[in-house]
Amino acid sequence: MTAHSRSLDKASLRYAVPAKVRLAARSGALASATHGLARGYVQANLAILPERYAFDFLRFCLRNPKPCPIVEVTDPGDPQPRLSAPGADIRTDLPGYRIYRDGKFVEEVGSIEAHWREDSVAFLLGCSNSFDQILLRHGIAQRHTEGADGRISVYRSNIECVPAGIFHGPVAVTMRPIPSKDVVQVVELSSRFPIAHGAPVHIGDPAAIGIADLKQVEWGRYNEPGPDDVPVYWACGVTPQAVAMAAHIPEMITHSPGHMFVTDLHIDDLRTG
Amino acid sequence: MTAHSRSLDKASLRYAVPAKVRLAARSGALASATHGLARGYVQANLAILPERYAFDFLRFCLRNPKPCPIVEVTDPGDPQPRLSAPGADIRTDLPGYRIYRDGKFVEEVGSIEAHWREDSVAFLLGCSNSFDQILLRHGIAQRHTEGADGRISVYRSNIECVPAGIFHGPVAVTMRPIPSKDVVQVVELSSRFPIAHGAPVHIGDPAAIGIADLKQVEWGRYNEPGPDDVPVYWACGVTPQAVAMAAHIPEMITHSPGHMFVTDLHIDDLRTG
Repeated sequence: MTAHSRSLDKASLRYAVPAKVRLAARSGALASATHGLARGYVQANLAILPERYAFDFLRFCLRNPKPCPIVEVTDPGDPQPRLSAPGADIRTDLPGYRIYRDGKFVEEVGSIEAHWREDSVAFLLGCSNSFDQILLRHGIAQRHTEGADGRISVYRSNIECVPAGIFHGPVAVTMRPIPSKDVVQVVELSSRFPIAHGAPVHIGDPAAIGIADLKQVEWGRYNEPGPDDVPVYWACGVTPQAVAMAAHIPEMITHSPGHMFVTDLHIDDLRTG
Repeated sequence: MTAHSRSLDKASLRYAVPAKVRLAARSGALASATHGLARGYVQANLAILPERYAFDFLRFCLRNPKPCPIVEVTDPGDPQPRLSAPGADIRTDLPGYRIYRDGKFVEEVGSIEAHWREDSVAFLLGCSNSFDQILLRHGIAQRHTEGADGRISVYRSNIECVPAGIFHGPVAVTMRPIPSKDVVQVVELSSRFPIAHGAPVHIGDPAAIGIADLKQVEWGRYNEPGPDDVPVYWACGVTPQAVAMAAHIPEMITHSPGHMFVTDLHIDDLRTG
């Protein structure tokens, strides 16, 4: 996914308007992760399912708003997210996609025009990339953005999602090592952004939510808490994908990890309280 | 719908837990409006549709959160609202129901056990009864609760809902005459309760939202603003019903006007900000 990205000055997209990031993805110039691009704008996880699973999946998202905050659900067959990014095309405007068949990863592609069907429904779900920008703005240290590749630590917790139809499974959580003095502020800040997974699901002991060993991440990489850090856990957008994969949907399409859809919604417009 | 209600001391339900109100409806002892009952708890509009319309209708509700704040959507065929009122039965626990066929009113009944099907999906949508309690708590005068029957003024505005599938139409609005000195506080308060329709859609001149004459209500009754009152308009839960009726769903069931479903959710738990 990085072949073309060398030809693009990615730094120029940091404060770009969202449409510019989307067009860079559409042209193939941007084929890498979107973390830190179009700062201030809501980025979204993508899951595309056939319509016959969509009502079950939408109830699942509604019942589990922390892992699955709904940004927009498109009409069957309509590739345009008319509310969150009018004029955008969900088939081309992400820098990378993954195709799954019967719950198994098949291939990674740069556009999905060949896979889009009359009954395709796109779910755009909130993502913590947006929240990272809030923490940055408030000067709160984040270990995973200090590292080389910016990947966060993701685990399977023992917290069960509320099921809906064929969809059920555990809540996947991200862990951020947060400086002890900042933990209260981080809870306050994140609670105001339900669209970016909202308040943490847990603070402190990983065993309390079924994580035996923090070093053993399920996705991403391990970001070690420093001596004055507290591990803080948020519900993660990997949850709905993992749940949909476990349900063995015949064909499902998602974004490639970190290759999110950048919406026209400003994160501050979706702040509550 | 009021035959049995005389045998019940309705005042005893004002501060009752929600289950007590629901059981009174189930037994037939309560067959009248729920305004002011189980104070502090969220009351909900009910719309029951066949599953094949449910995904479209749910997208409609998501896209129009002010008129259609989603409390819960049940699984097809499951009459229990497992999240908002575990143990309740949507078929019996409202004090009155209306049956519509092809968009036309057919009959009013006290329970819908005979009408509930394998593919019935119940939508519970937020209602301003909850919000009225907030205003009451803050000592803000409301003309419609001072009157004889407590009915509010409801109009068809010229604000168009965002369509979804077969569902489209104008936003229905309630009008409350609010004392001029309280208008700012009323906006602040209501904006914190998206589950009860959130902030107003308009303040002041009815013509600006397509209402030619305030005296000509579409539903409810006219509540005349006093000399120091300002008309303030909120999106109304009649909207999704009117839109579903206009779509000529073969069979749809709703609550009877004012005969709401009382959930176990406390309004303060759903406050944002």
